[in-house]
Order: sequence, then structure tokens, then C-alpha cells
Amino acid sequence: MQFGKNNTPFSPEEFAARIAKTKQRMARAGLDALICSDPANMNYLTGYNGWSFYVHQAVIVLQDLDQPLWFGRGQDGNGARLTTILPDDNILTYADDFVQSTTRHPMQEVARHLKERGADTGRIGVEADSYYFTGRSQDILRAELPNARIENADGLVNWVRAVKSPAEIGLMQQAARITEKIMATAIDRMGVGVRQCDVAAEIQAVGTRGVDGYGGDYPAIVPLMPSGVGTSCPHLTWQDDPFEAQTGTTIEVAGVRHRYHVPLTRTVYLGTPPQKMIDAAKVVAEGIDAALAVARPGAGSRDVHAAWTRTIARHGLVKDSRCGYSIGLNYPPDWGERTISLRAVDETILEPNMTIHFMPGIWLDDWGIAISEPIRITEDGVETFCSFERRLFVK
Amino acid sequence: MQFGKNNTPFSPEEFAARIAKTKQRMARAGLDALICSDPANMNYLTGYNGWSFYVHQAVIVLQDLDQPLWFGRGQDGNGARLTTILPDDNILTYADDFVQSTTRHPMQEVARHLKERGADTGRIGVEADSYYFTGRSQDILRAELPNARIENADGLVNWVRAVKSPAEIGLMQQAARITEKIMATAIDRMGVGVRQCDVAAEIQAVGTRGVDGYGGDYPAIVPLMPSGVGTSCPHLTWQDDPFEAQTGTTIEVAGVRHRYHVPLTRTVYLGTPPQKMIDAAKVVAEGIDAALAVARPGAGSRDVHAAWTRTIARHGLVKDSRCGYSIGLNYPPDWGERTISLRAVDETILEPNMTIHFMPGIWLDDWGIAISEPIRITEDGVETFCSFERRLFVK
Repeated sequence: MQFGKNNTPFSPEEFAARIAKTKQRMARAGLDALICSDPANMNYLTGYNGWSFYVHQAVIVLQDLDQPLWFGRGQDGNGARLTTILPDDNILTYADDFVQSTTRHPMQEVARHLKERGADTGRIGVEADSYYFTGRSQDILRAELPNARIENADGLVNWVRAVKSPAEIGLMQQAARITEKIMATAIDRMGVGVRQCDVAAEIQAVGTRGVDGYGGDYPAIVPLMPSGVGTSCPHLTWQDDPFEAQTGTTIEVAGVRHRYHVPLTRTVYLGTPPQKMIDAAKVVAEGIDAALAVARPGAGSRDVHAAWTRTIARHGLVKDSRCGYSIGLNYPPDWGERTISLRAVDETILEPNMTIHFMPGIWLDDWGIAISEPIRITEDGVETFCSFERRLFVK
Repeated sequence: MQFGKNNTPFSPEEFAARIAKTKQRMARAGLDALICSDPANMNYLTGYNGWSFYVHQAVIVLQDLDQPLWFGRGQDGNGARLTTILPDDNILTYADDFVQSTTRHPMQEVARHLKERGADTGRIGVEADSYYFTGRSQDILRAELPNARIENADGLVNWVRAVKSPAEIGLMQQAARITEKIMATAIDRMGVGVRQCDVAAEIQAVGTRGVDGYGGDYPAIVPLMPSGVGTSCPHLTWQDDPFEAQTGTTIEVAGVRHRYHVPLTRTVYLGTPPQKMIDAAKVVAEGIDAALAVARPGAGSRDVHAAWTRTIARHGLVKDSRCGYSIGLNYPPDWGERTISLRAVDETILEPNMTIHFMPGIWLDDWGIAISEPIRITEDGVETFCSFERRLFVK
């Protein structure tokens, strides 16, 4: 079902609930206002959807105002009118000579609007460590709002997002069908002598065409497919070079539906894999089983991490990075939500409808292996979004 | 030609020249150190190439140190060793529990490294308004480096990038062939009843496969294709919906080669376009002719803007946003370089091998039209990167 002028898949009631939860968290943090720069948070609170996050923009939540304000570049005002749930009066735009200017800054306009509404005092939260909220933005706000206290409210909305609604889960289940199709296609097309870019082209095309009944959206991260010695580097993108015989390749992709992501990773070996890689794949699969056996409401995210770590340690393997993170609604550069991290120092207690990319990649000196599972915490345990064999693929 | 372990298309001498020019600008600005967070600047100075800009990272240029330092997440260290020109000693990594932590921050580690090198005094430049340099990063650096002055050096390296080398121009010429192929494919595939996502899929596949002889890289912006009333909104992405009869669609895409972009925009009308759109297309084409007649070394970017504005004003059209910007090496979220903007308040004097997306989009209340030209300033004038008919396409 789609609602309203903006074809959003979410009901007005769902947006109202998101805003109410955000205001509750703001109240607990003692915030009178919240300036969101994270495009995912902007979308979550208003429905706004456009590739305009390369200029300064924001969604502003005022404790005293029913609906949020959208703030952005003049030429993106129509996009806000078309895609958000907001009344036109709540859409504020700035003139084009504020764009990438050395003498003017859009945050001066944010400050002006707050002053005009008498909202320039008290405590104003900013997403101080989010992409697209720059050091300069913060300095300008501090200078232009001398009667307010600018506070770090990073992650406040992200944590509201951490527990998904049934409608959000529905979109992720749709995305998962796309994910499976992308991964099957990628593995099918790979082969010795096939150019990496040709497989990347297929991945993108399949992900955008989607599956029967619906299309796909763009992922917040392009297909990652480090190959050979590159498998020791998780974030390399494709090259012109062909895949070589006797090498492994790690494929990390996501199907996306209305900005909701379900990522998946598998490793493919062309040729006869070395015993160490066969062994590692088994250990990783065993580690996933152990971790998922622990994941349920009431468990700590660190318990899941500990189950994984204990299992692979028994086989002499070590992974010193987190083995998973919260996923869902997002924009480039990351499909992770910057909330839950599955690691020893994380304090999250799992709740139903938290959604996590369990991503136990192991990257060693000159090789690596990764087999992942996107999961949902259910009422009494866990389920995987995708149905895809959990093994090393050999061709 | 490709050089060295990292297959970079640039010679060691070219990297040395980039670093020397950066140090000259640093000296003029009185900077002892420069912390670059912009992924394009990191690539430009070291060759680093990976989708890791969703965590904090930097390239640090010290006036007293020959080569820059690369700083990033532990699991990306191998990627830095594989893709940069740097000796291993210049690659500094941080532990994974600094990632998206609420208690630790990677910039604490940057400060520690600077202290260990005795580089924690004097004036340290940061890219204060660049993507990925957050308010929190700046606060941490200020707190951790009490003996230094943290200064805004935003755009310093970007301005070095504004004039391209012959090798860079060569890559952009390769990218332009991909751009032409993408645009031709997009126009060819569009039709009444064809889903937007299917055309977007083709655009991405063609752009990634590239042309005979070489493949394509991912663009810093996904294909933009606002349709119908959406043409009044330049930054909408594709939907599942099919293209409708009697509507216009603006297609903005870029071919990319080794991260170098050549963007191009055309408008396609399915059906019989209204006279106002036919007229506007002619005016835009005339405006492009007038602007390109003025673009040459020694002219101001504002002169180019003025020639455009005068021409369309004679026909009663107004565009209140900039009509072009510098292009080249980039990463999401923007292929613009955040230096030259073609507008009345810009002070750039054009030089040979400046490369600009002349982008005279006109976005009105409920429709729009855009026909653009990526251009290079030559020794005595201007040339277009692409050869693509400059008109409204009607199908």
C-alpha cells in the first residue's frame, strides 16, 4: 500500500509515531530542538527522498511544533513538496548563492529561521558525528545562536530507527528477494577471464530491475568485490581486470527497497581452494550457527559477539573487528545505521524487530573470507532475511 | 599506462607535483599540517581508493615530511598498502573499537600520531566544510591538540585539483566515451510504459561495462531521472513507475574512469512536447552557444554565467541557480569539486585544463528542462568532452 502525494509506503500514523518517539527521546535528553543532517533520519521523519545531500540540508524537530521543518536548497524545495508528508509551510529553502560559498553558509539560514520562530534559545541538538554535518556547520550554528546551547544528539533518531515497524520489515523482506537474486547472478556470472566490471554491471542491473512485482532502489554502498590478494581488503571496488584462476573473491551486495537495505556477503573461489580457506569457511559457518543460537530478545549484542568469538577461537581464528551492525533505511555512504555494533564493548540489549547484518568477515594478511547473514530478532529468537547457502562457493 | 603496485594511471612524478603544489598552498596559508578528509583529496594526494569513507579516515600532509600519511581503520590498512603510492611506514591504522563508538573517536588517534611526531603545534588545517569531516571530529581535534591552532583549509587541495594534468584529461576523455554510450542507451530504452527502474538498470550496467577497451567506474551520483512533474525537482531518483505518455524526463548521468567523471544531461519528451518546452530547449541551446563563446583562458567564470543569463533573459527565462561547476575526480555524494561555480558572485579566472560541467538546468514550478555540456578550457578557448546532440529528444 502507498499513501498520499509522496507514494510513501508508510501511513501518516507511522510518521506520527516516529515523530512522537523522537520527541520523547528529545525530552529525556532535555532538548528543545533537534537539527537532523543524516539523510536517513530526514527521510525517516518526513519521507524526504532525493540525492541532494551533497549540499547542506536538514530536518528540524521543534518540541513545540507538531510537524518537523524541512530545510534545503531552493531547487530541492519542489522535491520536498513532492516526497514529504509535510505541509508546504514547513518547507524552508535557501537561495542558491549559499551553495558552496566561502562567504555565506546555509546554517546561517537555519539560525535565522529558528530566531524567527523564537526557537533560538534553550538546548538544540545536532547530529555532531553524522556524515554531512560538518565542522563548519557546527561553528556557524554556535556563532549564530549565542542564546542556545548546541549539544551533541548524534544517534538520537538512529536509535528510534533501530526497532523496525511491520511495514519496514515488509520492505526489508522485499529487499531480501532482490538480494538473493543479485547474489545468485553474481556467483553465476563470475568466472576465470570474466572482467570484474562486467559482473559489477550485472549486479547493479539486477538490483535495480528487482524481482517480479517490484523494482530495486540504489544501495548505499556500491557492489564490493575484492579479489585475490584484495580479499584482505574489504572495501575495494571493481577493476577492469578479469577474475583469475585460483583466487577467491568476496562479494558484498545489498538489495534495496524504498531505501531499506538487506546486505549479504559470500566468498567465491575460482579453482581448487586451499585447505585453509575450506577450513575457514566451515569455522565461519559454525560461528554463525553459534551466534544465531544466542541472538534473541533480552540477549546482549555482546553475547552474540562472544558466541562467535568463542567458536572461531577454538579453531585458532581471530577477528578483531565487530561482527555485525544495525541495518535498514539508509543513503550513501553506508547501509549501517551507526547504532548497534556486535562487539564486546556494545551495551545493546536485543529487542524484537531489531535488524542486523551479522557480518563475520575475516581479513588476514593476504587473504580473507566472509559469509554473512542479515537477521531479524523475532519475538523469541532470530530469523534470517535471506535464504542463501551458507558456504564457500567454488567454481 | 599504469604505474606501480597500485595500478594508478598516474606517474610518481605526477603525485610528487600534486604534493608540492599542496605544500605551496599550505605555505601561503601559513599551515604546518593539513588533515584531508575529502576522499577525492585523499585519492589525489596518495592514490587511495576504497569505499571506506563511511568511517573516519584522513590523509595528513606535514610540511616537514616528504610523503603524506594515510590514516584509517585497521581493516582498511591493507587497502591503503595496495592502492597508495605510500611506503608502509606512512600508513597508520586505528583499532576497530574506535568505529562508531560513543566513548572513543578516531580523531584522538590522529592527535596522538601528530604528538608523537612533534607535529602538534603551529597551524593545522582541516577541511572544515567537506563531507565526512564532522563537527565532532573538529571538536575532538581542538580538545586533543591544545598547542595547535585548528584552521579552516576547506578547498585548499580542491583548488589544486581544479587545473587538470594531461593524464587526468586523458581519463576524462575516456570517461566521455562512456558518458555518450550511457546517454544514447538511456534515450533508446525510454518509452511509454517502460519502468523507470529498468532504464536506470541499463544506465548503470552500460556505465560499469564501459566501452571497447576499458570498463567504467561507479559515479559519485546515481542516475537522476526525474519525470513528469518531477522534472521540476532535479534530484529525484528512479521509481518503479513506468514513463508516461506526454511527459518530459531529465536524464543526468556520468561516465567515470578511475574516479574521473564526465557528466551529461539531456531531456527526453515522450509524445508531442508543449510549445513552451520546445521553445525553452532552443533558448537553452542558444544560451549554451553564447556561454561557450565566452569561455576561454582569462575570462571570468562570472562572464560565462553572464553570457548565459543575458541570452535566456532576452527570451523571458530566468535561472537563479549556478549554471555550472568544476568536475573531475570524485566520490559520492557529488561529482562537483566544490571550487568553481559559474555564477555572478564567483571570482575564478579561467585557465587551460579547467574542466567544468556547464549545467544550465531550468526548473520551474511544475516542469523543467536541462541540456548540459561538460567542457574543458583549452589554450585559446573551450572544447566539449562529449559529442552528443544538443537538443530536446522527442520519442
